[in-house]
Amino acid sequence: MSLQELGQQAKQASFDLATLTTRQKNAALAAIAEQLEAQQEAILAANKIDLDAAHEAGLSAALLDRLMLNGERLAAIANDVRNVISLEDPIGSEMDCRVLENGLRLSRRRVPLGVVGVIYEARPNVTIDIAALCLKTGNASILRGGKETFHSNMALVKVIQMALQQAGLPAASVQYIEKPDRELVAQLLRLDEYVDMIIPRGGAGLHKMCQENSTIPVIIGGFGISHIYVDDSVDLNAALDVIENAKVQRPSACNALDSLLVDQKVAGELLPMLAERMNQASVKLVATDNAMAGLSAAKDLQPAGEGDFDTEWLSYTLGVKVVADVDEAIAHMRTHNASHSDAILSNRLQAVERFVNAAGSAAVYVNASTRFTDGAQFGLGAEVAVSTQKLHARGPMGLTELTSYKWIGIGDMLSRP
Amino acid sequence: MSLQELGQQAKQASFDLATLTTRQKNAALAAIAEQLEAQQEAILAANKIDLDAAHEAGLSAALLDRLMLNGERLAAIANDVRNVISLEDPIGSEMDCRVLENGLRLSRRRVPLGVVGVIYEARPNVTIDIAALCLKTGNASILRGGKETFHSNMALVKVIQMALQQAGLPAASVQYIEKPDRELVAQLLRLDEYVDMIIPRGGAGLHKMCQENSTIPVIIGGFGISHIYVDDSVDLNAALDVIENAKVQRPSACNALDSLLVDQKVAGELLPMLAERMNQASVKLVATDNAMAGLSAAKDLQPAGEGDFDTEWLSYTLGVKVVADVDEAIAHMRTHNASHSDAILSNRLQAVERFVNAAGSAAVYVNASTRFTDGAQFGLGAEVAVSTQKLHARGPMGLTELTSYKWIGIGDMLSRP
Repeated sequence: MSLQELGQQAKQASFDLATLTTRQKNAALAAIAEQLEAQQEAILAANKIDLDAAHEAGLSAALLDRLMLNGERLAAIANDVRNVISLEDPIGSEMDCRVLENGLRLSRRRVPLGVVGVIYEARPNVTIDIAALCLKTGNASILRGGKETFHSNMALVKVIQMALQQAGLPAASVQYIEKPDRELVAQLLRLDEYVDMIIPRGGAGLHKMCQENSTIPVIIGGFGISHIYVDDSVDLNAALDVIENAKVQRPSACNALDSLLVDQKVAGELLPMLAERMNQASVKLVATDNAMAGLSAAKDLQPAGEGDFDTEWLSYTLGVKVVADVDEAIAHMRTHNASHSDAILSNRLQAVERFVNAAGSAAVYVNASTRFTDGAQFGLGAEVAVSTQKLHARGPMGLTELTSYKWIGIGDMLSRP
Repeated sequence: MSLQELGQQAKQASFDLATLTTRQKNAALAAIAEQLEAQQEAILAANKIDLDAAHEAGLSAALLDRLMLNGERLAAIANDVRNVISLEDPIGSEMDCRVLENGLRLSRRRVPLGVVGVIYEARPNVTIDIAALCLKTGNASILRGGKETFHSNMALVKVIQMALQQAGLPAASVQYIEKPDRELVAQLLRLDEYVDMIIPRGGAGLHKMCQENSTIPVIIGGFGISHIYVDDSVDLNAALDVIENAKVQRPSACNALDSLLVDQKVAGELLPMLAERMNQASVKLVATDNAMAGLSAAKDLQPAGEGDFDTEWLSYTLGVKVVADVDEAIAHMRTHNASHSDAILSNRLQAVERFVNAAGSAAVYVNASTRFTDGAQFGLGAEVAVSTQKLHARGPMGLTELTSYKWIGIGDMLSRP
């Protein structure tokens, strides 16, 4: 099947999905969860082919672990689908209902986007995750995973399509781009006749490629340098707890702390304490000249080089810089891609207001860890992506962010514009 | 100045604009309105240069009229700016404020987008209109008008920048791309480091060009085929009133009726009445075979050719087709770019529900004219554009659609993710 046909079928399926009841969509999700467990053997066999190939190709232990499915993980994935059943369906709700002076009863009604294209990398659970969230919001999806997970993904999509048909829904509600050609990704990005939104889930390179080549709106996100600015008005041990949480709880996450900006008023006292804390957590420090002396007790310390404050570490490394005040912190952040999650630790109301207003980040925290930026933490029940762009959605995207709206105007044949 | 520098300065100005109070922004708008009247002579002299050149180039009377400024029109433009002062400022309002179980006080706060790039065609009033709406929402703007209005636009932007400086705001809050190179438009579309949104205001060709070349999110809109489907359950004279309003009130508008879909149950009675009504309004009819006989009384009638139902007429022409039922109407609309404004005239609840749910249009009407799709009619107070895409904003865009939001999380140093 050509990509053109695949797009056409997805669009056709999206017409059916748009008018399903929540009960019908939930029944399809329940069938998917059930089939994931019933078809465990076939899925794990397919996954083994991918795992064997990955072993042979010498993939890292971390990548192998991301790739690996077993009974327990499949059960967890099935339960994630059941969790989506329990989420509120945003489709059909109406906003801003009012009668205009011209006589029209006007409202905005939440509707599905239509067709969502998702391009992702290693983890096979993304296949189920995205398919379930799109289905719940009445969107058809076209998926494209990494080549390392090809057999696993094909097995999972086969299970999904079987469950969809069982539930009386078109199999084309969830489709997978099977052929390995990279050219097909480029084609998908220009399928604007059928596809309404592209979600890349992967590294900065994937996002950049989508941004540069897509004629379809793309959700850019998932990376950015995270900063904490701390001044002298807070309890320093409590501040170190927050900093440690932000850096160490899960260093590979996009909301993990990258750069710590220490106000000069507290640097003398805080930096030695920081060195000690980070030693305990085996964090390497990369510091500006004005922070080196204060950090001299650090076991792993080096002067910051070109680009270090533009690096999303994703590991046990932390950049440290002493700044004159909140304005220098803001100026630093503006030139070092502060677009995701940033925090101020301070009790000075004026500095806090300045920071909150001026930070260009999707999520700004006061006296809290950057690690809060997450759909589950925010109570959205799901996370489709974390957007760092400003259109449509910003920060963690839940089900509502997979929807659009249409205006509905009801007249009486006599109302006139 | 290079486009790179222009973008840099716009971004820098956007930082200042983002933290202004409504009072400061309104003072700048008042200064602009005042200067537009005070500098009338210089503006009209510049406009005369454009008009003379347009005369010489043999532009149509309609284009010359769109280009032309005079004292009265300038006063109207100044009053439009004063109207923007009276609109509510959406910036700073907060949504979804709540305390999460994890202890975080979370909200979403409306913030400016940052820098908006606007590419438009003939009318010089767009220069003031967009600059004022962007300013009110704390956005910097980079403008690029058509070459026919070059001198007028330069004079208007000079007046704006003078007023901005008077009000203590950076002149770079509103900038204009001066050089005529078309290459600069292509460069603007890839200035994603500084520009957050592109709004094309012009024909389908301009939108297509932006969609294909931009690495910045583009608001696509302003065109689409508008349909009315009518069945036998309504008063036919009232239906003809609505149809006439939709077709004739302003045929050049993007929400004007293009195609009328007549249910076969009412065709025998309605088509002769339609022919008579359209004769009175000098509307040319382009009809499918199954409608020709019923329309035989029409003075200007021809059989529909290839592509006629894919044509946005923008003139006194109407496509007419007889359809079996609401489902055939929907099927027709799905294959003929129904993305802007469509209406059903019917008293059958089931047909109405089906139409409202299935129509893929930004605005769907029941027993009302497609002409309602307009920011002013919708009570938005302003209209930045009419979006036909599904992300960010759909249909008429007001001030709120020129904003984004940031998440703000307030902790107490102890709350933990």
